[in-house]
Amino acid sequence: MQLFEVVTVEQAWGLLRPHLSPAVPREEWVPLERARQRIAARELVARLPVPAFTRSTVDGFAVRARETFGASESLPAILRVAGEVHMGQPAPGLPGAAALRIPTGGMLPLEADAVVMVEDTEEPGDGCVWIHRPVAPGDNLVRAGEDLEAGQPLLPAGSRLSPAALGALAACGWSEVPVREKLRVAVLSTGDEIVPPGRPLGPGQVHDINGPALTLLLEEDGACASYLGIVVDEADIVRDALSRALDHDLVLVSGGSSVGGRDVVARVISGLGRPGVLCHGLALKPGKPTLVAAVDGKAVLGLPGHPLSAQVVYRVLARQALAWAQGARYAGRPVVRHPVTRGLASRPGREEYIPCALEHDGRGTVARPLLGKSALISTLARAEGLIHIPLDVGGHAAGEMVEVILL
Amino acid sequence: MQLFEVVTVEQAWGLLRPHLSPAVPREEWVPLERARQRIAARELVARLPVPAFTRSTVDGFAVRARETFGASESLPAILRVAGEVHMGQPAPGLPGAAALRIPTGGMLPLEADAVVMVEDTEEPGDGCVWIHRPVAPGDNLVRAGEDLEAGQPLLPAGSRLSPAALGALAACGWSEVPVREKLRVAVLSTGDEIVPPGRPLGPGQVHDINGPALTLLLEEDGACASYLGIVVDEADIVRDALSRALDHDLVLVSGGSSVGGRDVVARVISGLGRPGVLCHGLALKPGKPTLVAAVDGKAVLGLPGHPLSAQVVYRVLARQALAWAQGARYAGRPVVRHPVTRGLASRPGREEYIPCALEHDGRGTVARPLLGKSALISTLARAEGLIHIPLDVGGHAAGEMVEVILL
Repeated sequence: MQLFEVVTVEQAWGLLRPHLSPAVPREEWVPLERARQRIAARELVARLPVPAFTRSTVDGFAVRARETFGASESLPAILRVAGEVHMGQPAPGLPGAAALRIPTGGMLPLEADAVVMVEDTEEPGDGCVWIHRPVAPGDNLVRAGEDLEAGQPLLPAGSRLSPAALGALAACGWSEVPVREKLRVAVLSTGDEIVPPGRPLGPGQVHDINGPALTLLLEEDGACASYLGIVVDEADIVRDALSRALDHDLVLVSGGSSVGGRDVVARVISGLGRPGVLCHGLALKPGKPTLVAAVDGKAVLGLPGHPLSAQVVYRVLARQALAWAQGARYAGRPVVRHPVTRGLASRPGREEYIPCALEHDGRGTVARPLLGKSALISTLARAEGLIHIPLDVGGHAAGEMVEVILL
Repeated sequence: MQLFEVVTVEQAWGLLRPHLSPAVPREEWVPLERARQRIAARELVARLPVPAFTRSTVDGFAVRARETFGASESLPAILRVAGEVHMGQPAPGLPGAAALRIPTGGMLPLEADAVVMVEDTEEPGDGCVWIHRPVAPGDNLVRAGEDLEAGQPLLPAGSRLSPAALGALAACGWSEVPVREKLRVAVLSTGDEIVPPGRPLGPGQVHDINGPALTLLLEEDGACASYLGIVVDEADIVRDALSRALDHDLVLVSGGSSVGGRDVVARVISGLGRPGVLCHGLALKPGKPTLVAAVDGKAVLGLPGHPLSAQVVYRVLARQALAWAQGARYAGRPVVRHPVTRGLASRPGREEYIPCALEHDGRGTVARPLLGKSALISTLARAEGLIHIPLDVGGHAAGEMVEVILL
């Protein structure tokens, strides 16, 4: 078998990226109510000015500002109340020396240039309003188009559509939006010892963790994931399964990729098409036995069988590949910085990720590393983040700020 | 109309909580692959020991540790290779003065108590292995049940099931899990000026933002949300719509709840059942005109019509209500702490939330407040977090740490 040098995550990403297809402009139009967390296929602009008309920001009286100049508690400006603005209806005209009652959000009459807050007025009951404080033109209103002019960019292409962003799009006249089609991703688990969740275990057998967990992560990240099941480490069977998987846009196969007697996946990939394996081994802990490959324009990632390693590689490489192939502007979850509760040693020359809990210590949030070789599954269940120790850093002292990827 | 005192968010929550039904133990069993972000209905324990058998953590040779004691480069321990452990199969027996070849994850034979890493061995080709370094009992293996004993708690009741947690459950023998039934939440928008997204606007009309945005937020938070549409501010129509909405577990109605001429919702609620309105007005900016009510055991939240206010009240009150009623251990998104880029003034005696972007300034993440009265919709689209200024704080100086709710 061919031996590969260990490469950094950044180098691996550089090798993989040309084989992803960011330019494939498959878009579909979906109603706002089904577009949550989808990726905008193009720049989305305001289709209408926002607000669409000049609106009051208070309950009060629409006026010509100059008619209130000099008003005071002792010498109020007195204007006739000529009518009322109703929500959702065109504003009536505003005659001279008059005011119109207006609710918050009501449409200003063309002739008005300010609103007097109801708190600064008094109504003696004779059809007039006494104004105790002057307003300047523009007071207590938002002009048509002041937030967004029609045609003004609201969200760049590749934006992930949050509920708030979708609300903003609704306000700008959108009811359907053009989004990227979901990327179709195949998930395969390999290993002679792996059995599906729920199946009774024989001696030496373990349940498939990576298949279900990766499928769920992909769905969370907006892909259309297909779990193709478990294949044993035999070349013919792996070849059949991978051939089927290559009908998808991207393939994640876990297990079977550690450098040893079990490099079936690597050999099969090299036989399936060009260029085959791009690198095999990352300067990453956990996650070293990772295989990065491409077959005739389709990217294939071989993730380690070890569940924590598979999660780490998913987050540093697969999620990035997914975001890139979907044309998303940035990948996934926010990265935050918190002090770490204890010292962490690392070897310069490789990146390291350490699962952690996020706790409050009275002053703020701190990252508590979850260590211990054997607490793998319980750690997976409890971890809230992954502490990142970069390639060229030898570790962190207790109390130092560390970067945490939120899980 | 009845006037209500402004109460704090905490007081409002205290008034509302008794009317939610946390005890309703409606659970359903769903397969792992459909349980993402659902709430565990009970404590979930390991159904199997993890690992289920003693496993090697390296590629190497399973041995009795004592047979390697004293081994060195110059004087290796020499053991016969009696066979091989195959993945997913029971381990063969281990005769004395012998070793078994074992892959990472392979099952240890009963007689073995350690594994020698392949890197510390040499095979001269005569059926023996030369061991250059001694191992102690327990080296390079994980004992059966070392991570989790069968019956040991893995996740407490009320846990939100992440992909990683679901992977861990798969490893512990679960294929279906008992989760809380989704809470059924009705969403209503009120206002004479509101029209559905996509409908052409007449003068004075605006598109419904809150209906779609709240529905999407509820789905993101794991509820089953029903958008019941827009109702005009007329008592009979609001009463009909609210009666239908009360078939659900929780009702969110936005707009129509500011203290002014438009308190139709408050009056209607008081007529629908007991106890009716619990409070009307929060010590919260934005979000003051919020109505908290309960009708015959169903909670009703009247959110402000202003979209940013509605989002804030959703996050401080509705999400908490949702989590409580679903029996979730904690509500929603993580809160992080970052330095703020500029000074922020606040009035002690009310909580304040300010939308912000999260940026990197070279040393770490900083929260940049998004201010400006008129940039409402564009701010909604761009905000990544909400800076929280607590009730009793008068503001923050530039550079001070602030609490940010991630959006």
